[in-house]
Amino acid sequence: MLKSRTSPSRRDSTKSASGKPGAVYNDRPFGIVGYRAMLENDFLQIPDLRFEAELLVCETPVIAARLRFECTPKGSFLGLPVNGRTVSFTENVFYEFEADRIKRVWSVIDKAAIEGQL
Amino acid sequence: MLKSRTSPSRRDSTKSASGKPGAVYNDRPFGIVGYRAMLENDFLQIPDLRFEAELLVCETPVIAARLRFECTPKGSFLGLPVNGRTVSFTENVFYEFEADRIKRVWSVIDKAAIEGQL
Repeated sequence: MLKSRTSPSRRDSTKSASGKPGAVYNDRPFGIVGYRAMLENDFLQIPDLRFEAELLVCETPVIAARLRFECTPKGSFLGLPVNGRTVSFTENVFYEFEADRIKRVWSVIDKAAIEGQL
Repeated sequence: MLKSRTSPSRRDSTKSASGKPGAVYNDRPFGIVGYRAMLENDFLQIPDLRFEAELLVCETPVIAARLRFECTPKGSFLGLPVNGRTVSFTENVFYEFEADRIKRVWSVIDKAAIEGQL
């Protein structure tokens, strides 16, 4: 899954300010470690991955973004056999912040758009 | 596709305040007439359709919403053979307003979540 490129830079970011585990992605508690691992895997699978926000809507403590991707996943992506084709798609995503860090993420990726390009 | 339940109630709403055609949905100019037709079709195909916003982020002139649906499409939905099963899914959507009316919509529906329930 694609998420913000925001990534933790300090060891203590494995816990949020409240002491609870870190990032929650689509209601699944990933923790910062899992979140980072997912992002690292995204970049391994999609070497030209780049996050472009074409729309941002901010109301504390949430940022909503419409992200647009044009990228080339190496193998399958979201269960689709992309296999090195360049695909274009969007992601509408909400990031809730706490103490300057992402606390919760609610993301939907336009899988149908990718299907239409295969 | 699911959109806001906001629907025009006046005849002159076929044009936006600027005189240009009405609503644009995911970069396709539908106009208010097409937008209304799409909503009417949604309710025909999904009789128990109901829009529940579980998250709203507002920054003028845009509202971002995370909508959650639990509903029972009669036939196929987003190309999937739902056929009367009750499915649960989310939609992350941005509505840009002009003169109190929806001008542009950018929506992504979580089709993968529905696939996982079939």
